[in-house]
Amino acid sequence: MTSLALIEAAAERLRGHARHTPLLSSPFLDEIAGRPVFVKPECLQHTGSFKFRGGWSAVSALEPETRMRGVIAYSSGNHAQGVAAAAKGHGIPAVIIMPEDAPALKIANTRALGAEVVLYDRANESREEIGARLAEERGLTLIRPYDEPQVIAGQGTTGLEIAAQAAEAGVTEADVMVCCGGGGLTSGIALALDAKAPGLKVRPVEPEGFDDVTRSLATGQIQSNPSMAGGLCDAILTPAPGDITFPIMHRLCGLGIVVSDEEALRAMAQAFLRLKLVAEPGGAVALAAALYHGAESDAPAVIAVISGGNVDPAIFARALGALDV
Amino acid sequence: MTSLALIEAAAERLRGHARHTPLLSSPFLDEIAGRPVFVKPECLQHTGSFKFRGGWSAVSALEPETRMRGVIAYSSGNHAQGVAAAAKGHGIPAVIIMPEDAPALKIANTRALGAEVVLYDRANESREEIGARLAEERGLTLIRPYDEPQVIAGQGTTGLEIAAQAAEAGVTEADVMVCCGGGGLTSGIALALDAKAPGLKVRPVEPEGFDDVTRSLATGQIQSNPSMAGGLCDAILTPAPGDITFPIMHRLCGLGIVVSDEEALRAMAQAFLRLKLVAEPGGAVALAAALYHGAESDAPAVIAVISGGNVDPAIFARALGALDV
Repeated sequence: MTSLALIEAAAERLRGHARHTPLLSSPFLDEIAGRPVFVKPECLQHTGSFKFRGGWSAVSALEPETRMRGVIAYSSGNHAQGVAAAAKGHGIPAVIIMPEDAPALKIANTRALGAEVVLYDRANESREEIGARLAEERGLTLIRPYDEPQVIAGQGTTGLEIAAQAAEAGVTEADVMVCCGGGGLTSGIALALDAKAPGLKVRPVEPEGFDDVTRSLATGQIQSNPSMAGGLCDAILTPAPGDITFPIMHRLCGLGIVVSDEEALRAMAQAFLRLKLVAEPGGAVALAAALYHGAESDAPAVIAVISGGNVDPAIFARALGALDV
Repeated sequence: MTSLALIEAAAERLRGHARHTPLLSSPFLDEIAGRPVFVKPECLQHTGSFKFRGGWSAVSALEPETRMRGVIAYSSGNHAQGVAAAAKGHGIPAVIIMPEDAPALKIANTRALGAEVVLYDRANESREEIGARLAEERGLTLIRPYDEPQVIAGQGTTGLEIAAQAAEAGVTEADVMVCCGGGGLTSGIALALDAKAPGLKVRPVEPEGFDDVTRSLATGQIQSNPSMAGGLCDAILTPAPGDITFPIMHRLCGLGIVVSDEEALRAMAQAFLRLKLVAEPGGAVALAAALYHGAESDAPAVIAVISGGNVDPAIFARALGALDV
């Protein structure tokens, strides 16, 4: 069970390895949202997403003799890079199972970080089955993308930073919008804030058509997405919230917020224009909620996590087209 | 005369107002450069460029009764926004003289920050003359963009941060590439590093066709640019190095480096891809020098300042076209 102690221990192991990302703001974003907006840019994290935190936390938590045999992960891309970089940093082998339709950039980066990449068909194959088989064959340790206590603990270090930075900025009450796939980042941040900054409430944010967490929170039971293909926000498309992450989110989070792909693209454009940050579509949904779904939040301030920035140039250019300057 | 004491006093006045930007890196950039590359992203500074530091430093250094009458500045855009934001932060009026051909975004932002914008013809009018006239008419204090000790001191706070961050990263010997227009940022950083990290040598970087500082350093005398129109790197196009900045640069800097517009665009693409940062062309020339002019530096490591990120979307999209992913 992930607890504050596990998150604080992860923060110790990450010290000097993960980046302490800043908390940014812009008066132009405040104006759009009608309240102060703060942005936690995990796109500036190593490998371009928060996933490096969970990857490093999980790899560093393994017993040395287990770790040296290597690790395996399945991922649409960001977890892949996070685990690959963490494995490289520890000098151990990594096998990454990625969907054939993952962005070319993410596949290339994962390989460049020294990992062996195994591709699979997202619509017809189960990455979980492939992962389990390869792990057994080669003696590798499977690093799950979100339903894994040490991964949640690593992502939760983002929440420790947010708690301290919000206090420094004088923000004691706010909704914290978090881009949500399987719930690793969301539940980790929620645990950290519950302990360190209870006036900050996590609101999971998802793209339209992949709102499994929002429906699960509304019904109190784990719900699945009807389809897993075709989304723009590839980084946060998961079939359902995790058995570990869901109870945490159910206990600690406010209602989910669902944004359109168009809103995610507009949020990417605002991050470009006002913060000079590159966000990927899935990484921008929380900022989209902060900017365009104010009616669903009555908090006096909002903090949005930009979870990643690994976006193909063509999609980024499409987002820039949403600007009329 | 700007000294370390003036820079440290500026750092005190900027505390809690300017952002302490991180020092970033990527193994992919190290590979291109063939040595460790560190990036100081002043595009993440308030108003999207380092100019906020100098603006705040100069405005905060004025006597209160002088300050309350307001300030005036002439600028291609980033100094304008820096001074406008600093004036707004102090609750005083600001008049900004901008060229008619400045990026639409910079003009709009300057107005949105509460300043009165006066446009002029870059080819046929002297912004210095217009500035002096308006300053006298309205009792405003002119904040020069670079040849002003308190502005240099403010920009120099970037150098104090680089010195501390390089030491923390274990870097004691490096070339520090700095995007150079009139030399305010370059001379400020050079002064700070000379005092705090003498193994870090500043190398001014300019775009082709606007290499006044490089030629001035090579000849030991102030040289001018033959033309001031048509450059992609609008943020750092100035007629000649300043009377205050040049002697500092001549005493403390290594040789200048001149990069092509194409290299600046490729550096913008790498900043997008590997650091998730938005750089403007003039703000990317230092990174271009770090990545593509390694033969002109024999330092074991290189630190590049990205000086700003205020770029129109169409030009950014053009830079993305330089990527073949």
